[in-house]
Amino acid sequence: MRIEHDMLGELQLEDSHYFGIHTARAARNFPITGTPIHYELVLALVSVKKAAAITNRQIGALDKKIADAIIEACNEILAGSLREQFVVDCMQGGAGTSSNMNVNEVIANRAIELLHGEKGDYRLVHPLDHVNLHQSTNDVFPTAVRIAGIRLMKPVTEHLAALQTALQEKEEEFSDQLKVGRTQLQDAVPITLGQEFGAWAQAVSRDRWRLYKAEERLRQVNIGGTAVGTGLNAPKAYIFTMIEQLRQLTGIGLARAEYMMDPTQNCDVFVEVSGILKAAAVNLSKIASDLRLLSSGPKAGFGEISLPALQAGSSIMPGKVNPVMAESVNQVAYQIIANDMAITMAAQAGQLELNAFLPLIAKNLFEMLDMLLRVLPLFTNSCIKGIQANKESCLQHLHHSYVLVPALIKKIGYDKAGEVAALCLKTGKPVHEVVLEHGFMDKKTLDEILNPVQLTTPSK
Amino acid sequence: MRIEHDMLGELQLEDSHYFGIHTARAARNFPITGTPIHYELVLALVSVKKAAAITNRQIGALDKKIADAIIEACNEILAGSLREQFVVDCMQGGAGTSSNMNVNEVIANRAIELLHGEKGDYRLVHPLDHVNLHQSTNDVFPTAVRIAGIRLMKPVTEHLAALQTALQEKEEEFSDQLKVGRTQLQDAVPITLGQEFGAWAQAVSRDRWRLYKAEERLRQVNIGGTAVGTGLNAPKAYIFTMIEQLRQLTGIGLARAEYMMDPTQNCDVFVEVSGILKAAAVNLSKIASDLRLLSSGPKAGFGEISLPALQAGSSIMPGKVNPVMAESVNQVAYQIIANDMAITMAAQAGQLELNAFLPLIAKNLFEMLDMLLRVLPLFTNSCIKGIQANKESCLQHLHHSYVLVPALIKKIGYDKAGEVAALCLKTGKPVHEVVLEHGFMDKKTLDEILNPVQLTTPSK
Amino acid sequence: MRIEHDMLGELQLEDSHYFGIHTARAARNFPITGTPIHYELVLALVSVKKAAAITNRQIGALDKKIADAIIEACNEILAGSLREQFVVDCMQGGAGTSSNMNVNEVIANRAIELLHGEKGDYRLVHPLDHVNLHQSTNDVFPTAVRIAGIRLMKPVTEHLAALQTALQEKEEEFSDQLKVGRTQLQDAVPITLGQEFGAWAQAVSRDRWRLYKAEERLRQVNIGGTAVGTGLNAPKAYIFTMIEQLRQLTGIGLARAEYMMDPTQNCDVFVEVSGILKAAAVNLSKIASDLRLLSSGPKAGFGEISLPALQAGSSIMPGKVNPVMAESVNQVAYQIIANDMAITMAAQAGQLELNAFLPLIAKNLFEMLDMLLRVLPLFTNSCIKGIQANKESCLQHLHHSYVLVPALIKKIGYDKAGEVAALCLKTGKPVHEVVLEHGFMDKKTLDEILNPVQLTTPSK
Amino acid sequence: MRIEHDMLGELQLEDSHYFGIHTARAARNFPITGTPIHYELVLALVSVKKAAAITNRQIGALDKKIADAIIEACNEILAGSLREQFVVDCMQGGAGTSSNMNVNEVIANRAIELLHGEKGDYRLVHPLDHVNLHQSTNDVFPTAVRIAGIRLMKPVTEHLAALQTALQEKEEEFSDQLKVGRTQLQDAVPITLGQEFGAWAQAVSRDRWRLYKAEERLRQVNIGGTAVGTGLNAPKAYIFTMIEQLRQLTGIGLARAEYMMDPTQNCDVFVEVSGILKAAAVNLSKIASDLRLLSSGPKAGFGEISLPALQAGSSIMPGKVNPVMAESVNQVAYQIIANDMAITMAAQAGQLELNAFLPLIAKNLFEMLDMLLRVLPLFTNSCIKGIQANKESCLQHLHHSYVLVPALIKKIGYDKAGEVAALCLKTGKPVHEVVLEHGFMDKKTLDEILNPVQLTTPSK
Repeated sequence: MRIEHDMLGELQLEDSHYFGIHTARAARNFPITGTPIHYELVLALVSVKKAAAITNRQIGALDKKIADAIIEACNEILAGSLREQFVVDCMQGGAGTSSNMNVNEVIANRAIELLHGEKGDYRLVHPLDHVNLHQSTNDVFPTAVRIAGIRLMKPVTEHLAALQTALQEKEEEFSDQLKVGRTQLQDAVPITLGQEFGAWAQAVSRDRWRLYKAEERLRQVNIGGTAVGTGLNAPKAYIFTMIEQLRQLTGIGLARAEYMMDPTQNCDVFVEVSGILKAAAVNLSKIASDLRLLSSGPKAGFGEISLPALQAGSSIMPGKVNPVMAESVNQVAYQIIANDMAITMAAQAGQLELNAFLPLIAKNLFEMLDMLLRVLPLFTNSCIKGIQANKESCLQHLHHSYVLVPALIKKIGYDKAGEVAALCLKTGKPVHEVVLEHGFMDKKTLDEILNPVQLTTPSK
Repeated sequence: MRIEHDMLGELQLEDSHYFGIHTARAARNFPITGTPIHYELVLALVSVKKAAAITNRQIGALDKKIADAIIEACNEILAGSLREQFVVDCMQGGAGTSSNMNVNEVIANRAIELLHGEKGDYRLVHPLDHVNLHQSTNDVFPTAVRIAGIRLMKPVTEHLAALQTALQEKEEEFSDQLKVGRTQLQDAVPITLGQEFGAWAQAVSRDRWRLYKAEERLRQVNIGGTAVGTGLNAPKAYIFTMIEQLRQLTGIGLARAEYMMDPTQNCDVFVEVSGILKAAAVNLSKIASDLRLLSSGPKAGFGEISLPALQAGSSIMPGKVNPVMAESVNQVAYQIIANDMAITMAAQAGQLELNAFLPLIAKNLFEMLDMLLRVLPLFTNSCIKGIQANKESCLQHLHHSYVLVPALIKKIGYDKAGEVAALCLKTGKPVHEVVLEHGFMDKKTLDEILNPVQLTTPSK
Repeated sequence: MRIEHDMLGELQLEDSHYFGIHTARAARNFPITGTPIHYELVLALVSVKKAAAITNRQIGALDKKIADAIIEACNEILAGSLREQFVVDCMQGGAGTSSNMNVNEVIANRAIELLHGEKGDYRLVHPLDHVNLHQSTNDVFPTAVRIAGIRLMKPVTEHLAALQTALQEKEEEFSDQLKVGRTQLQDAVPITLGQEFGAWAQAVSRDRWRLYKAEERLRQVNIGGTAVGTGLNAPKAYIFTMIEQLRQLTGIGLARAEYMMDPTQNCDVFVEVSGILKAAAVNLSKIASDLRLLSSGPKAGFGEISLPALQAGSSIMPGKVNPVMAESVNQVAYQIIANDMAITMAAQAGQLELNAFLPLIAKNLFEMLDMLLRVLPLFTNSCIKGIQANKESCLQHLHHSYVLVPALIKKIGYDKAGEVAALCLKTGKPVHEVVLEHGFMDKKTLDEILNPVQLTTPSK
Repeated sequence: MRIEHDMLGELQLEDSHYFGIHTARAARNFPITGTPIHYELVLALVSVKKAAAITNRQIGALDKKIADAIIEACNEILAGSLREQFVVDCMQGGAGTSSNMNVNEVIANRAIELLHGEKGDYRLVHPLDHVNLHQSTNDVFPTAVRIAGIRLMKPVTEHLAALQTALQEKEEEFSDQLKVGRTQLQDAVPITLGQEFGAWAQAVSRDRWRLYKAEERLRQVNIGGTAVGTGLNAPKAYIFTMIEQLRQLTGIGLARAEYMMDPTQNCDVFVEVSGILKAAAVNLSKIASDLRLLSSGPKAGFGEISLPALQAGSSIMPGKVNPVMAESVNQVAYQIIANDMAITMAAQAGQLELNAFLPLIAKNLFEMLDMLLRVLPLFTNSCIKGIQANKESCLQHLHHSYVLVPALIKKIGYDKAGEVAALCLKTGKPVHEVVLEHGFMDKKTLDEILNPVQLTTPSK
């Protein structure tokens, strides 16, 4: 056991704990969800600390021995060690101060060990005077949230690309499969099954592009702004070098915000990015719902496609297979829409020079990205890629519906085409029978009109 | 033209305007939506003013002649006159002050006329010293919002009852119509079409009950609390009489909140009521979506019911009829869910002794109620009542799906029933054929099991 | 390793795994969040299984030896064992089927062991034919979600009661502390600090009551309804006994829904309960925000109260203490509002005989309750109870503002009181000085009016 | 009176009505809100019709006389006539079909008159065969919604620019006004009042840029795609010419979507644009809330700025002026956030080849834009431009708080600076007194540190 002090008094800490008194108090203060901040955020915070140590060493503000120990400690953590030492809850109050202190303390104590000191002997390496030198939670934390966000977004973009590809492969595979197109769930006009996959692919392609562009929004960081963005206590040399170091360390094209008070207090970029993820969720949900519709049945529904069977569907109905992956996608989408709401509420509640609710924004943003990271490859590989067309159903529906009627309009006009439809409905007979029986047009003309290619593309 | 003064200076008012300078400034300040506050809220505000005049006359605080003129002016407005004089936007800032002043000024000027004075001669009847006597916007406006809310809720409750009745009539009408029950859009087990309507009716019945009970939440009012609920400047005699008068005038069982600072600042009851309306929206949306599913087709969909045709469905597809009323219901439901969000945001943004955003809460609450008031009778009368069963489709789906399989489990066990299902899928043959062909059981046993009544109720 | 089979083929399972092939497939299909369903839901599911085994034994549907083994296995799990065997993700697709199967399999395999068999030898105890006898996921899962919900709600209600008590103790403690009341953040009229705590206590009291009543909504369960609520395959004797057993086992006043198809498909009660939790969140957020306002400063803000210092507030600003607990409460509130949105979306997306998205509803509901369970005692004990009044600030603000002006109206009228206010603003002098200097009234009358008690209660 | 027919029967229409039977049915079917579709949408629909007539005339598909009459009718409507004839409710079911028919009928009947026929004599000009030639609601309506959206967005962008300019003018005006910077509402470090306005201006600048870019999203239209985007019945010559005509008529850089089935069914671009408007709302709300905080008081609050007085603030508290314009801005922001939810729900509910809920999306999008159009100039001109600094308050707060403490760290370290803060708190003395009295540093060093410019910018 060791004892540490702060402005509120003292606290005993277990010898094994690399974190110190500030972390311990925070752990006690915020057992809100039981889940610590995202590990990617821990890594991003440590990257900032490492960049700061390098920078401070370079500008001569930090003793080389101390700086080196800090950098080495950061390297160890970035390589995966001490992960369990980052214990502060993801819904902590205090605008991220506790997680910043957690990182400061763990790095300091590990650096102390590297200098052959004992944990808690902050004369060797001080969490604030050394590890946090020229920084404030209020520039470190928002910067790290952006870095972590960008890192999580990149693979999501790739997964969207893979989904798009899978959809487009199906577009091609089903390019000849004629079927009923439906508007407002009512039989409308003919399309190909491939076209349906193509329309979904377009939407996903937009999501991919948007997310790719959205990354740029997060690149503007306020590191160097310290407490409120004015840069109080941060030397100019530090500020200019710091962003350079951070760019190098992260490999991300970060840029110092021109007006650092702005990203310190304003969270609209998170609302924007979250809005983009929400748009993706809307598309995914629409695709998943459409797949569930098209695969409904197998006998008493649309039944035009079959989704891959992933598990037995029922504990009471043998043989039943459910669209479970599509349902998971719907659920992820609903959760993302909800998370967007949390981010919006937190973002608008910022006050004056800081938004105290950035931890909540980070939690919800990373959750959205994590869910997409996990569900997208499942959706692509376990669902989309295995979809099969039920050709017979597609054609049977086509011929027994009146979706061929609109194709008649250009020859016989809207009102007469309406008569055909009415007769079909009344008699139950297919369109072509009615047309020929009642002499609306001759067979040759009709055959031209009902040519499958013509039915699904503009006229010449 | 007449000239009026306030703390900011003077303003010219047209002779025809019953409202005065405070209203005129507000009209200029808040052209946000172009829509004034709900007329029911105007009436409720005027009811409060009338009750106050009666009360103040009774406790001797207001000259009888003035009180009588005020009461008479109120009576005229309550009978429908001067409606166009209430011009302040529904999204006004200022916590309702401008609408309270609007009402004070119109009543004062009309009362002045009744006393043979000229508009603007506030020595005769003063908007604040007389009409607003012993009141503040902060007790008048929240009280009036509650009164108006209750008045709009009552007919909604009745419309829900009518919807429930219509659904139950269909439940009975279709009580013998066997069909496929679907879970996760997959064919599951047999039900009757009547049972589907019955399940919807249950949900609506809950909505009706909830809304009926929710009215009670709104009955606690803060009238008499004046500016912050402490009752500053309001004599006790006034407070006790006032609530009595208001109860009589409105015919609503209003009660003075024990702790008047509470309803002055806390808006959770509106969140609660809004949440209840949202639950109703969720049920309505689910019913509407189900109706659209069941009526999908007519040929290439579920097609088990037909909704009444209300209008031609397409400008290009003759004969197409769309589920337009159900779609309207969905849209109303989505809008209600959105309005609930506006109410939630406004409610949580209240600060200290007042919620400045009550006008937004009122706008959204009344909009929700208005939409329900309008769409519910349309849904009931133009849609539900005219629904017809497509008996043939219902039975065809039933016999070609494998939803009869689960009924076999109690005789042959889960695994063998699964074999039957697999064989049905593989061969495309109906369940009973497979069962008999493969000797899973004899015909007599099978017939007992497939008895329609047994299929849709618990076993003996 | 053992091998199990299902309709899709076979799978190897580790010997240590009590779950079987259905669970293993689900674990592979849904690694969406990495978090399994709530443990309270596991326990509720097992309670249902135990009740079913007792019931089936009693009605003679299940061999006593098998039933006893199942019951014993349930007892062990209910006592805390095998917790790690419940592995299916909380955002699983499939309407809960996988978690139902997970529970069936774990119980079956443990029961098999108790009968000295080997895991996987389902001839001894079968997950479906025995453990799941007369049940379907679609009645088991919704029933268990309700039971778990009720169990989590009870302690939340108690924590709300404790918060209310703490607020009321402060109401009394600060009942004499005069201060400025603020409307729209502008100085308004005098109140006591105690009254502010009292108004918050009223709101919390309503939350407590609402939550207490909301429990009733969840008591109606559909157990016995099997796949779609028709009770297919479930003997009447089973249905009647089952609910009785479940009531006894859980100690909750559960009731069988009259119309079991209703709770199988309709999720509006969850929207209702979630809406109530949202109303509580709105109140908590308002209180937390008010506390942050009142404790703002300490020097350049309102500074009328001090919150207990829980941790050092800043890594750069020594001595700074932040309202971290109140901020946590705000964040919890925002998250609850977001979760309510997820529940709403899932509830309205139900289709026909089932809502496939109940797992998402359960996840979000339990998260809301868990967060409240954790943050409420922290808020009460670490924040509210330790709040101290800054008497000097309270009085200084009171005397330098013009909130005493309204109290003058009843003596000198609105317009003259306005003149006093204008003079105060212009000269910077306190109200009483201006009144006396300019002869608005004599000192005796003024002293009567400015009497502290009178200032914060209605007039005689 | 004239009589018209459709597939449902006949209806009497007043002679004065330019709309026909389809419109009349829709008016009866959807009295949901009492508000017709946005006038800008009417104009956009008519622009599409005009472009189609020109195109059809050009490709020889439409008789020149008829085409000319249609074009002339369109010109009249675009010039403002017949506005009252567009009566279908903004929350109509049917995916916009009724509004498309409304426009077809009004144009046809006016064209008939221009050809000296009588309204209803559709042999002269037919609403479908002529006005709607080669079109479907499903390409006309989504195209028109995009055009109207772009037109409403342009002035919003300009108003954002004006707001940004006004904020930057204040940034300059207050660039020397030192004051307390606050994080988490606690006194933090010194800033200038100008910097606060600068940070807000940055956020608005981002909104402006985003909205400007978002316009591009809406430029991809599906005109020519007809019913489901396949272009059924539309000649290629029509499709290619049509987009050209529309570009010319509207002056907007519209582009035909490569894959027209995509914009026919997918509404994610509206979610994206709505998300961007929501981000703007979040910024506006944050600015408005900050203004309300900074102007709180005037005596018992922050009181660092004064907002222009727009109206008397209270019916009971003379002299009170409230931040009514900022409150309106908050309300608009909350409503926008709610509308975004409606759009999200409608967008994700699209099914297969069409989104039936585009009317709801349009309603909410246009409402958002309209509110911004109205409130932004008010906010800029009636609020921001008139803001005044309360210099005395700013400086008084600065000197009595401990926000100067962090500036000491670089000379005396974090722990000693903490001691200074503690002593300030304990004694109530200003920072510089404590520093000198206790000898933390000499006066010369201190004066250097407390230099105002240094306090609000990075160190050299």
